[in-house]
Formats: sequence, structure tokens, C-alpha cells
Amino acid sequence: MFRVRNDSAAAAIFHKHRIELADGRELFYFDDTIPYATGELTRDAVDRRELPPARPSGEMRFDELSGSWIAMATHRMDRTFMPPVDACPLCPTKPGGFSSERPAPDYDVAVFENQFPSFSTRTGEVSVDRAVPAIGRCEMVGFTSRHDQTFADLTPQRVRTVIEAWIDRTTALSALPEVRQVFCFENRGREIGVTLQHPHGQIYTYPYVTPHTQRMLNLAEAHLERTGRSLLEDVLRREQEAEARVVMRTERWTAYVPFAARWPVEVHLAPERSVPDLASLDNDERAELAEVYLELLRRLDRYFVTADGTPIQLPYIAGWHQTPQGIEHLGRLYLQITSVLRAPGKLKYLAGSESGMDAWVNDTTPERIADRLRHVASD
Amino acid sequence: MFRVRNDSAAAAIFHKHRIELADGRELFYFDDTIPYATGELTRDAVDRRELPPARPSGEMRFDELSGSWIAMATHRMDRTFMPPVDACPLCPTKPGGFSSERPAPDYDVAVFENQFPSFSTRTGEVSVDRAVPAIGRCEMVGFTSRHDQTFADLTPQRVRTVIEAWIDRTTALSALPEVRQVFCFENRGREIGVTLQHPHGQIYTYPYVTPHTQRMLNLAEAHLERTGRSLLEDVLRREQEAEARVVMRTERWTAYVPFAARWPVEVHLAPERSVPDLASLDNDERAELAEVYLELLRRLDRYFVTADGTPIQLPYIAGWHQTPQGIEHLGRLYLQITSVLRAPGKLKYLAGSESGMDAWVNDTTPERIADRLRHVASD
Repeated sequence: MFRVRNDSAAAAIFHKHRIELADGRELFYFDDTIPYATGELTRDAVDRRELPPARPSGEMRFDELSGSWIAMATHRMDRTFMPPVDACPLCPTKPGGFSSERPAPDYDVAVFENQFPSFSTRTGEVSVDRAVPAIGRCEMVGFTSRHDQTFADLTPQRVRTVIEAWIDRTTALSALPEVRQVFCFENRGREIGVTLQHPHGQIYTYPYVTPHTQRMLNLAEAHLERTGRSLLEDVLRREQEAEARVVMRTERWTAYVPFAARWPVEVHLAPERSVPDLASLDNDERAELAEVYLELLRRLDRYFVTADGTPIQLPYIAGWHQTPQGIEHLGRLYLQITSVLRAPGKLKYLAGSESGMDAWVNDTTPERIADRLRHVASD
Repeated sequence: MFRVRNDSAAAAIFHKHRIELADGRELFYFDDTIPYATGELTRDAVDRRELPPARPSGEMRFDELSGSWIAMATHRMDRTFMPPVDACPLCPTKPGGFSSERPAPDYDVAVFENQFPSFSTRTGEVSVDRAVPAIGRCEMVGFTSRHDQTFADLTPQRVRTVIEAWIDRTTALSALPEVRQVFCFENRGREIGVTLQHPHGQIYTYPYVTPHTQRMLNLAEAHLERTGRSLLEDVLRREQEAEARVVMRTERWTAYVPFAARWPVEVHLAPERSVPDLASLDNDERAELAEVYLELLRRLDRYFVTADGTPIQLPYIAGWHQTPQGIEHLGRLYLQITSVLRAPGKLKYLAGSESGMDAWVNDTTPERIADRLRHVASD
């Protein structure tokens, strides 16, 4: 079973520094290496590109048949698609080389406003009656300046800095008056539509509670009224007791495959202590999370192997479910990781039943997924 | 504008003939060519294959966080994947050749129980407590015996026979005590995960009202209480009045792009007369549907063109939203066609925001989709 190596971690040491890109978009460096981590030196390179004005928000329309808002951002058709490494907007700017979205010649973690945002605080026009501006914010999170790494290659210290960046941005974005929900996630792999290879995540902020979260909150509220207990807490405790679907358990975190997993690979990671969001995690929980998260991602990259035994880098979506402000008693923090890969070279598609009816069929069982994820543990 | 050629169509002439495959699964021929259409001759070739027993149902588990049932069918991992044409299970059986799922040497339309069903009336075991058998039925609909055709290549007469097959099967399957909802659909194209190239559709029957339909019904019920009117009727009338998103309108049918379309290509097709399901369509509506549906599919195959102007066969999901029995006053029949193709060679992926939060972003607008679909009209 996985053991956390660094049981009493010191508080994260990092330094945050804000600059503006040439078009006024914000960029935040979160540096954890000396001399930047201590603030002795700052990343103050200036973005000297000629950029068009930052794109304004698109629009949102209410779908009366589902009760959901649909955002429309036509400029996203033009977004950068799989650029070569020497034109990567997430690599640092090298003297004499391509001027990227990071003016500095190096960085540790860097967060900046997406150039092609689905939601923006720069209010744009709407194209028809009954549409409203899609107010919110979309940020990109560069996990490292190294183009060829993946999240699983990061050091625990760097993961810790990413966690601090997520917390910093969630807190700042939650304070915007239009924002109802903040979602930190990573899409990894071409199979899920990633258009930039450089290791990065994203932060979406929505001006509404998302349909997924709203449904869960409605059920949690009914559960609370009926039982006096928290739905997500009950789910976690039952999984811990049943054990069959538990993948990894440490003092402060439990990873398990949900009882009704809908994806061919799916795993949830929840803290032992009931907290609504990332910012509520204490120092020890954050330190342990960095190690547990890395171990989980490394196991996922051993989940499938090719016929000759080579591990397959798993395409995945990893997203943090945080509770919207004001209803903290109904939610509970958890990470959801899912993959569309159902076998080497074979994807799970959302065809008629899933796309048309939201009626899901899984080709495997949660117990099999959990078995495999235990089998590929480190050491 | 598109004109229906055959305004007062005769009733469809077809003959239905039932056989059992070697493992007891049912197969229904719906023949519209002489001498089979008149019943003078029947397709009574016998399935002489050695088959293992028909697979029993998998299981379903209730997802407490979404309030939905998730079906699990582990045997579907083994399903036939893109067989070559000489091993196609949907081609007719040729004397001395491969024995397919159709014993007859030819057929017009043939419906049979799926060999790898997500739901089945052959009740199987469940693997854990709190799981229940996934009772229902999954049928495959061969639109033609010709392997290299697509639905858009069919004659209006053949489409009419497909419509009659959908109606026949919906009526029969709705009568099964376990069935709550019947869904007739076609997945077309590798991009959406089609595993058999032969032109075919599917019929899924669910032992629950699907999440998509249940959400719509809840909203329709609230709308009815608030306004005294039908939600889907109001949506159709408003689109007809606005015109901006109307793609095609005939005496009995209107095709329009929904106001809050979530897919890069999406179109709905609704009858002028308010009916809950396909079986409620009268003879003229069915005849006109055959022509309107064909025109719509042909336009979709001209929607995108390559750089040199060659039309791209659009991957699509076409699904019929029929109202579950007993609540006919809340629903209204419509066809929904969606595509994941957002540009030649580029797919819309359901990444973090859609998969994790059910929060959709579209890269285009419904008005642009409708413009294009009007522009590529026949003649």
C-alpha cells in the first residue's frame, strides 16, 4: 500500500508576482525556486508583443428543454491548435526566439487569462434577443516551463505550488461579483481534445451553478433533510467501509472508484476531513495531497499497456469539485479523474444513448477498475 | 426552399416476418419489395450457426450524486469492432460465404436483438449488493442489405419502411412490462464510435425514464402549470415565428436549429401537429417525413467541404425523442440530429467543462448553423 513519505511537511514556500500581458490580460507567476520563491528576484520581463485587444466575452443562452445555460464563443474556432514546440504559447520566451504568453525566460507555475476565453469579465455584445453576455473568467495554468513533461513528472514541491495556485485563484475569482462557481481542471491527451501539448490545466469560472453541481446539491439537500447527514460524507464512509472499490488510503485522503462509475476508468479522491473546497485544506492535507495525487496519476499511466508491455499514457480529465459559496454545508471537496480510454487504442464514445438521452452504459465494473489501480501501485 | 414531391402518398406497403436466430434472439424482416412486400414469399432461411447462448442482461447501479442509473455490460468489451465487409454481421448471408446475423440471402429492412446488449429481457446475475439487472432490450436496425450505402442513399420508399419498423418496434417494446422508454437512433461515422460500417440504427429500451427526458418532462410540467401550454409546442411556434433558425419548413414538418444548440452542428425536426410519438403520425406525415428526413441528411453531408471543395460525410447522431407512455400530454415528438465535427478534421470534444460540470460551450451560433443548412439545400 502507498505510504506518504513526507508526513509533516513544512508550509509551502512560494512567491506570487502579477504582471500584465501586452493586451492587458493578467498573468501570475507562482515561483517556488530560489531566488524567486523568496521574492529576492521577481519575473518582471515585459511582454513586448503587438497584440490585438483582449477578446471580450461571448454570450450565453438558456436552454428551456434542459434548464441549462449554453455558452457560445465563436472566436474559439480560431484558437491555437497543436503548435510546434518552437511556437508554444506556454513555453517561456527565449531571447531572440518566439514570444510566447510568458515573457520571462523561465518560470515555475504561471497562471494567465486565456486568450480564447469561453467566459470573460470584458463584457461583449450579444447577437440575439434573450442572450446574455457570458461573464466569468477562463485562466490557463502552466504547471512547469518544461514542454515535454506531464503532471505526473512534477516534484511534490511543484505540485504543492500548483495546489497553492489553484487556491489563490479560486479565492480571488470567487470574490468577483458575477462568479458563482470555480472549476480547476486538467485535460490531458489528444484523445480528449487537448490543443496544446505543454503541460497545463485550466480554471473556468461560471456565472451560474453548473448543471452537474446543481443536480448534486439538490440531491444532497434532500439527503440532508431526510437523514440529517451529508450525502458526500455518507458516500465516502460507505466506500471506506466496503473497501472493494478503495484504491489508496492515507491518513488524510482516500481514493476510490465510485459505486456507479460511468467512465471506463474513473476514480475519486476525497479528504478524510469534511471540507467544502481546496482553500479549507490545512497544511498537512495539502502536503499529503501532493504525494497522493502524484501516485494516483502515475498509476493511471500504468493502467493500460500495449501488447508488448509498454505503459500507455492515459488520456484523462482531472477536475476539482468545490462547493459554491454560501452553501458550504451541502458540498464536500473531491477530485474526479476520468478517462475515455476503454482498452488500448479503443475509446469510449458518447454515442446515441449517452449524448441523446444521458443514459450511460459502462463496459466494465468499478471493482475491476479498482483492482487494476491497486495492482499498479508503486513498488 | 425544399418542396415535397409526393404530397399525397399511398400507405406504406410492407410485410413483417419474424424468425429466431440460432441462439433464440428474435429477428424481424420488414420487406417492401415484391414478392416479399405482399407476403407472397417470405424470408424463411434458417440460421444454422453454432452460437453460444444469448447473453443475459448486465446490471444497473444508481448514482446517488446525479440521481441516474448507470448500466454496466462487461461483455460489450468483446463486441465486434470494424469487421471487414466479408465478415459483416449485417450483410445478408451468401451461399457458401460468411454466416451473418441475417440468414436470408437478401433483405430490405431487418431488425434483430443485439448480440451485445446493454439491456436485455434475459435476466442475468448482478455482481454486487444494491445493483439490479439491466432489464430492457437493445435491437439493431439494418436499413438496407447494401454494405456501402448510407441512410441518405435510401429511397423515400425504403425510409418509409424504416419508419414503419421504428413504429412497430416502439409499440411492441413499449408493451413490455419493464420498459419505460424506447429510443430509436442512428450513430453514423467512426468519429462517434461506430463499430460496424454497414448502415444501421439501433433501438434502446430503458427500464427507467432517461435523465435527459426526465429533466425535459419536469420543465414541461412546470411550464404547463405556469402557462397552461405545452413547452415543446411553444418552442416550435417561437422558432417558426422567429425564422432565423428555421432550416426547412413543409406543410407537416419544420426543421430548425435550437436557440441554445450545444453541438457545433445541431438540428431538430418536429411535426406541425402535436403528437407524442412516431406511432401517432398519420399516413401523410409519415410519407412527408421520409422525404424531409432524406433532404436534411443530404444537406448535412454538404455542410463541411474539404479545402478542394469535396463534401465531407458528416458524423452524426440522429435520435427520436418520443414521450414515455402515460404522460403523453407533457411530451411532443421530435428528432434531434447532432454532430461532433466543428470544422473539417476538427472535433468538438467533451472535455473538462462538459464532462466534469455539464457546462457546455459552443464554438458557433445556431443562426450560423441554420444559415449553412439553408445554403446547402438541394437544387
